[in-house]
Amino acid sequence: MRVDLNSDLGESFGPWPMGDDAAMLSLVSSANIAGGLHGGDPTVILNACRLAVARDVSIGAHPGFPDLQGFGRRQILGFSAGEIEAFIAYQIGAVQALARMAGGRVTHVKAHGALSNMACEDAMMAGAIARAIRAVNSDLIFVVLPFSELARAGEAAGLRMAMEVFADRAYEDNGLLMGRKKPGSVIHDADAAAENVLAMIRDQAITTGTGRKMPTRVDTVCIHSDTPGAVAMARHIRARLDAAGVVITPFAAWV
Amino acid sequence: MRVDLNSDLGESFGPWPMGDDAAMLSLVSSANIAGGLHGGDPTVILNACRLAVARDVSIGAHPGFPDLQGFGRRQILGFSAGEIEAFIAYQIGAVQALARMAGGRVTHVKAHGALSNMACEDAMMAGAIARAIRAVNSDLIFVVLPFSELARAGEAAGLRMAMEVFADRAYEDNGLLMGRKKPGSVIHDADAAAENVLAMIRDQAITTGTGRKMPTRVDTVCIHSDTPGAVAMARHIRARLDAAGVVITPFAAWV
Amino acid sequence: MRVDLNSDLGESFGPWPMGDDAAMLSLVSSANIAGGLHGGDPTVILNACRLAVARDVSIGAHPGFPDLQGFGRRQILGFSAGEIEAFIAYQIGAVQALARMAGGRVTHVKAHGALSNMACEDAMMAGAIARAIRAVNSDLIFVVLPFSELARAGEAAGLRMAMEVFADRAYEDNGLLMGRKKPGSVIHDADAAAENVLAMIRDQAITTGTGRKMPTRVDTVCIHSDTPGAVAMARHIRARLDAAGVVITPFAAWV
Amino acid sequence: MRVDLNSDLGESFGPWPMGDDAAMLSLVSSANIAGGLHGGDPTVILNACRLAVARDVSIGAHPGFPDLQGFGRRQILGFSAGEIEAFIAYQIGAVQALARMAGGRVTHVKAHGALSNMACEDAMMAGAIARAIRAVNSDLIFVVLPFSELARAGEAAGLRMAMEVFADRAYEDNGLLMGRKKPGSVIHDADAAAENVLAMIRDQAITTGTGRKMPTRVDTVCIHSDTPGAVAMARHIRARLDAAGVVITPFAAWV
Repeated sequence: MRVDLNSDLGESFGPWPMGDDAAMLSLVSSANIAGGLHGGDPTVILNACRLAVARDVSIGAHPGFPDLQGFGRRQILGFSAGEIEAFIAYQIGAVQALARMAGGRVTHVKAHGALSNMACEDAMMAGAIARAIRAVNSDLIFVVLPFSELARAGEAAGLRMAMEVFADRAYEDNGLLMGRKKPGSVIHDADAAAENVLAMIRDQAITTGTGRKMPTRVDTVCIHSDTPGAVAMARHIRARLDAAGVVITPFAAWV
Repeated sequence: MRVDLNSDLGESFGPWPMGDDAAMLSLVSSANIAGGLHGGDPTVILNACRLAVARDVSIGAHPGFPDLQGFGRRQILGFSAGEIEAFIAYQIGAVQALARMAGGRVTHVKAHGALSNMACEDAMMAGAIARAIRAVNSDLIFVVLPFSELARAGEAAGLRMAMEVFADRAYEDNGLLMGRKKPGSVIHDADAAAENVLAMIRDQAITTGTGRKMPTRVDTVCIHSDTPGAVAMARHIRARLDAAGVVITPFAAWV
Repeated sequence: MRVDLNSDLGESFGPWPMGDDAAMLSLVSSANIAGGLHGGDPTVILNACRLAVARDVSIGAHPGFPDLQGFGRRQILGFSAGEIEAFIAYQIGAVQALARMAGGRVTHVKAHGALSNMACEDAMMAGAIARAIRAVNSDLIFVVLPFSELARAGEAAGLRMAMEVFADRAYEDNGLLMGRKKPGSVIHDADAAAENVLAMIRDQAITTGTGRKMPTRVDTVCIHSDTPGAVAMARHIRARLDAAGVVITPFAAWV
Repeated sequence: MRVDLNSDLGESFGPWPMGDDAAMLSLVSSANIAGGLHGGDPTVILNACRLAVARDVSIGAHPGFPDLQGFGRRQILGFSAGEIEAFIAYQIGAVQALARMAGGRVTHVKAHGALSNMACEDAMMAGAIARAIRAVNSDLIFVVLPFSELARAGEAAGLRMAMEVFADRAYEDNGLLMGRKKPGSVIHDADAAAENVLAMIRDQAITTGTGRKMPTRVDTVCIHSDTPGAVAMARHIRARLDAAGVVITPFAAWV
């Protein structure tokens, strides 16, 4: 059994720290590094790339909405497909150059926050993201939620894809994430989250809130980095996976 | 005789236009496209790249200080070399990705505004810019003012360089531009500017305010895009060069 | 007969001009001056205030979403009422201080762009805007679309209100503006727009696309400032009103 | 004996926290609240004002350079006096409106970071700040370093002034702060800092690095909020002052 662990990093800005990049990079195999429009600045991104290279962690670009104050978490309507393609490419390119400066390279792309949430259910937005990735570099791996419009758009664009599951989130019967405000949508207990991850890896399926099993490749597990206790939760999940003999390694090897 | 004409483009932002990219792109052979921190946004940059590709104009990245309101024209102190390297790489990468999306590629880099002015006389800053370019792609051509720290840094970094002169500016005896506030520092007459350009190309030298001739390769002539009458001035210079049999072509062919 | 003419001004940013504030200020009686988050910067706002004071034009604050690149025209979801109250107050206060520096004072507040459009139909947002105005200064006049949630919220907050109509827009049967994309929603002919304005003033009512007359006080007419031909359109409407004996004067006199 | 303790607060931004406003507000008598251009956003500023009102702490506006990424700590050249006046007024007004929304009011203004450092030695900049304060509200108290251009400008503008000393910094013989990079310029020991403060209050003078005593009213002591251990340092100084019978109270009572 093998799986990738990914986390969103490089999200500090100027004098304001966010999360503990160094600690997380000793636990995950892939880092999604902010592109500077919702978080991250050039120095922050470069430092995150350097830490990732030093720890042999795969570097991904993590583009978000151009909304620094809202940290890319507010839904913004009215972007055309062309505008989305442009700001996705912009951010991928920026991270590519800084990854290269750090002695590494960008292997994958994962959309951030509200952009990702909206595109999971919006074919226009998902298509724009997929086409932007392909236009910049068709070898980039597109990290997507299974059963989402992102997955459909990645398929249509002919991209290699990594199927992502969440350690601490419950699923709706359509295979998408349950909204955070619904009771039971978030798993707060580290042990329960670890169990959940192990089950998904073993089953190669997600299980919805109603108990429905939906088969999918499980390539990578998202580990949150910016919540209180994030590092402790990540450490626990990692330890449980190690103990269960799951090999933690970047998904580029198999997707 | 052959020379490149370059102009700074892609400097609109959101709803605010700046200059007439389409008109300038029918006159110049190289476009320096803003990187989004002093001007330009992803959509603006992509559109400028598309226009450049359509007209066979070489695309350059034009990184500036992270100072949108000041349009990168205010001197900002206190950036470390590492911070400069990071924001230069960030902007180059962003333009590279958008150029690729437009079907082109970035061939050169030219620093913008106060960043360029300061680095002309500041070896630390010039070195940071040159190293950033080399780290992102050592094949990129570095557009520099002859006799400046930028030229020295480009040499030290082993970069191919394009020597740039200005159509409408007078020179100090150290070979650098005379400050805009000095009387006689700016040539406002289109015909005089064209004469000036022709003389520099013919002589392969600049002539300082005191009449001193300083030999240098003259690879590219900067044509301003954002001043009133910029397009008319550009058109006149282009016509005079054409009439004199000077071939206008991107400097990548010879530098 | 008397009416106020209002226009959105102070929307330039840094090196990027927008509209012709000086020309518009010789035609209108009220200026809605941007608060710096969707457009305007401190220098731009101060200059607009100075021009308004010099021409005896009433100064209003024109707060928008914090979205410079999108010019406040993109709908942004997820702001809480408290967040809206805060950014509205922030912008009102900023314009108040600059108006005072210019020797004037803020008399009214009008929401900008997507914020206004959304709040016209969203009671939570409208309430937040009204409460913010009241909290900053309960003497400020709230410029609202009749029949909108803004008008209801202003009433609930006990604010003085100015009822605004549009020279060049058609109305739905609910009294709100017809979406710009519907055929017939925008009046492009200056003469037709002037006729439309005169009819609304005479009738003290708007007439919807289906011919329904909806009575309302008509306190102020919005004159666009940032569309091509805006000044010419404004000049024509002003001339027609002057010719018809309509007195153009700030609404503070009667609302 | 009585003195004011002031601290810079409201400097978080969007999702990024900075310092511990609540803890500091239980220790100081005056809060300098960021104006949103170098730190702070409308919600952050409003919350800081609310906390200050709840604890009966005087509210000041703390305007800085428009440089969010650099947190207003980079020296920026080339602002005209008029531009400085505008962005100072903008930020004061914004904080005034949010203070009012919180049920309080702005009593004083203190410049932030590089803006303050530069203006201490630059009469043009200092004059612009003082004039901006006077233009917005001539009753506002101007917090200044004794012996600085700020103090001279405040005097020239006829403003009430509060003379500020630093708990943890050494002074040059011209009465200004020793640069942070000089050995001995920063007092890291909480007890030594408290001793230093007590001496300045008792002597109503600062003592320079060479032992020179320079008499000045000592109205307020700056307590840092954003360094590691800031709260502990503040708590210690406060306790020592309380123990020595120094009354901690806003300077508005006597300046």
